[in-house]
Amino acid sequence: MDRQKKFLLSERDIPRQWYNIQAHMPNAMHPPLHPGTLEPIGPADLAPLFPMELIKQEVSKEPWIDIPDEVRDAYKIWRPTPLYRAHAFEKLLDTPAHIYYKYEGNSPSGSHKPNTAIPQAYYNKQEGVKKISTETGAGQWGSALSFACQYFGLECEVFMVKISYNQKPYRKLLMNVWDATVHASPTDRTQAGRSILAQDPNSPGSLGIAISEAVEVAAMSQDTKYSLGSVLNHVLMHQSIIGLEAELQMEMAGEFPDVVIAPFGGGSNFAGIAFPFLRHKLNGSKNVRCLAIEPASCPKLTKGQFRYDFGDTVGMTPLIPMYTLGHNFLPAPIHAGGLRYHGAGAIVSQLLKDQLIEAVAVQQLECFKRGVEFAKAEGIVPAPEATHAIAGVVREALKAKEEGRQTTILFNLCGHGYFDMSAYQDYFAGKLVDHHFTDDELYANLKELNTPEIA
Amino acid sequence: MDRQKKFLLSERDIPRQWYNIQAHMPNAMHPPLHPGTLEPIGPADLAPLFPMELIKQEVSKEPWIDIPDEVRDAYKIWRPTPLYRAHAFEKLLDTPAHIYYKYEGNSPSGSHKPNTAIPQAYYNKQEGVKKISTETGAGQWGSALSFACQYFGLECEVFMVKISYNQKPYRKLLMNVWDATVHASPTDRTQAGRSILAQDPNSPGSLGIAISEAVEVAAMSQDTKYSLGSVLNHVLMHQSIIGLEAELQMEMAGEFPDVVIAPFGGGSNFAGIAFPFLRHKLNGSKNVRCLAIEPASCPKLTKGQFRYDFGDTVGMTPLIPMYTLGHNFLPAPIHAGGLRYHGAGAIVSQLLKDQLIEAVAVQQLECFKRGVEFAKAEGIVPAPEATHAIAGVVREALKAKEEGRQTTILFNLCGHGYFDMSAYQDYFAGKLVDHHFTDDELYANLKELNTPEIA
Repeated sequence: MDRQKKFLLSERDIPRQWYNIQAHMPNAMHPPLHPGTLEPIGPADLAPLFPMELIKQEVSKEPWIDIPDEVRDAYKIWRPTPLYRAHAFEKLLDTPAHIYYKYEGNSPSGSHKPNTAIPQAYYNKQEGVKKISTETGAGQWGSALSFACQYFGLECEVFMVKISYNQKPYRKLLMNVWDATVHASPTDRTQAGRSILAQDPNSPGSLGIAISEAVEVAAMSQDTKYSLGSVLNHVLMHQSIIGLEAELQMEMAGEFPDVVIAPFGGGSNFAGIAFPFLRHKLNGSKNVRCLAIEPASCPKLTKGQFRYDFGDTVGMTPLIPMYTLGHNFLPAPIHAGGLRYHGAGAIVSQLLKDQLIEAVAVQQLECFKRGVEFAKAEGIVPAPEATHAIAGVVREALKAKEEGRQTTILFNLCGHGYFDMSAYQDYFAGKLVDHHFTDDELYANLKELNTPEIA
Repeated sequence: MDRQKKFLLSERDIPRQWYNIQAHMPNAMHPPLHPGTLEPIGPADLAPLFPMELIKQEVSKEPWIDIPDEVRDAYKIWRPTPLYRAHAFEKLLDTPAHIYYKYEGNSPSGSHKPNTAIPQAYYNKQEGVKKISTETGAGQWGSALSFACQYFGLECEVFMVKISYNQKPYRKLLMNVWDATVHASPTDRTQAGRSILAQDPNSPGSLGIAISEAVEVAAMSQDTKYSLGSVLNHVLMHQSIIGLEAELQMEMAGEFPDVVIAPFGGGSNFAGIAFPFLRHKLNGSKNVRCLAIEPASCPKLTKGQFRYDFGDTVGMTPLIPMYTLGHNFLPAPIHAGGLRYHGAGAIVSQLLKDQLIEAVAVQQLECFKRGVEFAKAEGIVPAPEATHAIAGVVREALKAKEEGRQTTILFNLCGHGYFDMSAYQDYFAGKLVDHHFTDDELYANLKELNTPEIA
């Protein structure tokens, strides 16, 4: 009995620096390119969109970046977050594996997203910005940034993918609680939105389209900047707070993970928990597998191509070196809206190319099945995005059982599913289906790309 | 800067005993009576409904009751819970008051209810019970018991007040995740339900009716017992874990509250946080005000009568000495379903009668206004029930400001509002109204009561 379930840190244990894996990558990422000149972009190219401090962080090779006191103070609203040993889930799976999870669902918006929303809002405020525009899929990111903007006294304008806007009214309402303005994207408020609507007035929207709209709004206004919830280097770095805390907590538990697992959308969730552990592999001191779980409805890591591509649909962003399915790829409509993005961040892409991390794609029915099992055992209903990690964990745990070996698994339970109960309702009602792309469907957009390839 | 926001305990600090205020009340509560004989009921009268250990706890005069290891182990899923200093909310209110809140929203079902659901399910399991029946209003209690039953391998049958069943489909779904069977009450499955439907086929239901149904199901079956989420002595005692933890945490903060505030439905929320502090007043060592905030839509503490009444609508329970508006009283339809109950638990009623605690009634518009302010400042969207405490806190904090005196306020933030966003939607849309009962409406049911009065 009296075995330990939670490994809790105190506020003074909240890390004082983020970890920047760019300092330790054996092969640096390829430079983002200006889409017109195809030359590497410089700080001046990004200055209309981001405050200078975030641009510096984007290209920094320093391994450790100080967390400002004001940011650390805001982190205290929900950090440090708990690390759990999944005793009951292990028992249910009858596995010799030790399963740990870092739980980020107790944040204001219910996911890991405020870890970067808070510093992004802070640096914008410091540099005199009045408003931040952004996109959101399922609404996790939009609600996180809404909270962060309100915390630092900034306006926030959110372009929410229309299908999610309609499916998840309560996420929108959460943004309204925090005073954000929310639009169903595509809108007629931007050139980008109007061009999409001209082609298809009933467009359900996509993350790529919403990014185009939010970028345009920022580019057109002096005192408005843009903010992204994943993909970019500084975003991934802010999320390292998850893994740095987890490292301290795994020490409390007296273990080091054999494998670290996280869902994969643009990369911040995965990078956040994995990179602080991966650094021990990069410096040769410890071995650890880092496993990204992507949806089979949008399999850029396992089926995509490593090449330059736009971050958005319309083609307003720099060209990013990424695993991509093409910036016009339309993912199958699954409930894990946060994972429906055509490309992977540049750092993660380079690490995958260098075989320093692994990826696997899973179907949503497997994810929901495992998510419900987890909720029964551990009491937390996971967000649809988080169920992807859980499906990956179960595969690893059952393999360990089959092979009769102990293994230590750590995963990121990135958010709760209390705003996603309609997804569970559909799952219980048998309304959810898996989606199997043909190769033609998967590669159609890649074939049309005329962006530079990477040798 | 670096000021402390959260006061966190470790798992080993989870209390090993509950506090039973019956040991220290200056005037013992009046005995519950058998409705037929009007004689005090004994253990045998309760045995069809409750396991013997809970019956013992119901009448115990021991100040401390051991928490079984298995219960403490289950508590570790979400306990100890954090205590927060509401720095940002204090700033927003511009008050000299120090405001602390104990947050119970990180439990599996999102409220304080699992604190008693877990031990109730445990003792039932220990005594060979197969199934537990219960009622639920907004669904907080039903989901907590569903989780607890599933945790210990028991069946769970929930009668959910029909209006909430329709308003809050996701709460029902949460119960389904944990394998409970949920009915919209009144049903045609019980004599009690059929008699209500015969009078009014469109009855929206009430907690009192749902209790009648759940009690009947338990009374009719050998291996089924009944469970209640508030009102009863053992339920209030299990919730003392909240205040006992908060006491340790207030010590960490170097303060003792001048006033402890909680929402009031049947009493378990309020008792849970207040009684461990009240014990210092009862033994004369410290002074503390304990303030219950009830909805003006159901003001039994401030407008009710202290007398014997039934716990349910049909009249199947023992007669309980309580502040009541009459067991047929139909509260105004507010969104804080958990507070829509006609009576108050016997212990709380006696303490109010003896002027050892205070009560105040507030309207729902004031509550939502303060709830939204709190969400903006502190990042947590409170359950509609919890907004009542917040409204009470603001009144105290603004009074302190007006009088220019420091005061230390502690309140129970009993749950999050992520399943109640439709209530916020209605609030923002201007659809919520206050309800002002006339005296005739308030006292109509009391006038018809033929249950014994208390001298």
